[in-house]
Amino acid sequence: MKPCVESPLLIRGIEYGGGKPLFCIPIVAGDAAELAVQAGIARGLRPDLVEWRADFYKDQTCDAIAAAARLLREALPEEPIIFTLRWKAEGGAQEMPQPVRRRLIEAVLRSRCADIVDLELASEPAFLDPLMQTARECGARVILAMHDFEKTPPTDELLAKVAAMEARGADIAKIAVMPQCADDVMRVFQLILASRKRFPRLPLAIMSMGALGSITRVAGFLYGSDMAFAVGKEASAPGQIPIEDARRMADLLLRYS
Amino acid sequence: MKPCVESPLLIRGIEYGGGKPLFCIPIVAGDAAELAVQAGIARGLRPDLVEWRADFYKDQTCDAIAAAARLLREALPEEPIIFTLRWKAEGGAQEMPQPVRRRLIEAVLRSRCADIVDLELASEPAFLDPLMQTARECGARVILAMHDFEKTPPTDELLAKVAAMEARGADIAKIAVMPQCADDVMRVFQLILASRKRFPRLPLAIMSMGALGSITRVAGFLYGSDMAFAVGKEASAPGQIPIEDARRMADLLLRYS
Repeated sequence: MKPCVESPLLIRGIEYGGGKPLFCIPIVAGDAAELAVQAGIARGLRPDLVEWRADFYKDQTCDAIAAAARLLREALPEEPIIFTLRWKAEGGAQEMPQPVRRRLIEAVLRSRCADIVDLELASEPAFLDPLMQTARECGARVILAMHDFEKTPPTDELLAKVAAMEARGADIAKIAVMPQCADDVMRVFQLILASRKRFPRLPLAIMSMGALGSITRVAGFLYGSDMAFAVGKEASAPGQIPIEDARRMADLLLRYS
Repeated sequence: MKPCVESPLLIRGIEYGGGKPLFCIPIVAGDAAELAVQAGIARGLRPDLVEWRADFYKDQTCDAIAAAARLLREALPEEPIIFTLRWKAEGGAQEMPQPVRRRLIEAVLRSRCADIVDLELASEPAFLDPLMQTARECGARVILAMHDFEKTPPTDELLAKVAAMEARGADIAKIAVMPQCADDVMRVFQLILASRKRFPRLPLAIMSMGALGSITRVAGFLYGSDMAFAVGKEASAPGQIPIEDARRMADLLLRYS
């Protein structure tokens, strides 16, 4: 029943857009010791992939971040790793000058310790273009993302964002928006359907956040979303469900759909 | 998070419109022996209520149906029983002259072995009115139902059906429609939301049928539907899920919503 993408994207043997829902565990460690602990916990939970929210890492020097990326790669040799360094304006944990952030992301990409980098579609071209170029050179895939932590913009507007992500060359398009009512959650399901129909080959990670939206994290697969975020040790966004329960629900929903 | 009705309907201690999703197991036995077996299986599965689809019963004489109703009442002394005798034109198992059907339903109501009777909203007033009157006299509640086994009519049309059920004095309004695409399933969720908003005190059983619609049987509760049908031994409509899995999914969805 699941509307798979026509030709799945393969990253470290994981199919994005295959028949299987993908669950990603976020890691939000403050230092190397926490990072090692959380990586071990995540690995035990056998996620399909892991997202390192590096903006939660306290030491934001190039050396520290690159060393942490290596530590994570060694702790998780098989799992695809998403590297995300969001700044405050994007809902991230820290304020950070853009040139500093750009150097940090480049350092991690060049270390080849990340398989995927998450970048905001709304970033300035002077920031986004060279980073996408570096990602390509280093064999990393790019998630282009759009977040709204307050509301769920009109569906047409969101579909236009997915189209812009595709046009900009995203390997995976990510939309995470906050519902203010149950109808907003329905609109996110409709966005998933419409995006899948319009872009049959584009891997999608589309979700409605918060408790109200949590159903989209386990049922979005039915309508064409390929990846969702689930809790390992600590949530990185409101509404994330512990991965075992998320998998159980997604498997049951897929079994009967 | 669940939008409960303001004042739940109570039938044999079960709250329709309370905080708890209600699962009903249909019984589709052909004779008394099968009825006893299925009642025993159903009881073991601890459903919130049981629907006897009496149109599957081979012997359609008043005596046989009334005796079967007594048998079922004795086998299920605690569970609320819905009595349903659908004819072919309504998706039932048998062709049957309306006067015969009316006499059978009356006999069961007068036996006081059924707690709830399921009647089609579209029935002629000459059939429906006296049966609703008899139900009232015998202390039984009335489900007014609308089915479409082919398609999902426009949402406004379906909402008008719910309004008509409420106006006709339904204790529970039931809508079961077939989706032709995933968007039809979304429209059923929206119908549930709209019906709950417009009729805050009316218990609802609203579902999208088939594999595509099966998610509405476990997630409809999130948006205001109070009751769903789940499989005990044998399904009575396409898309029904085994009750243990249905409960597990509904519980998980409610836990995180």
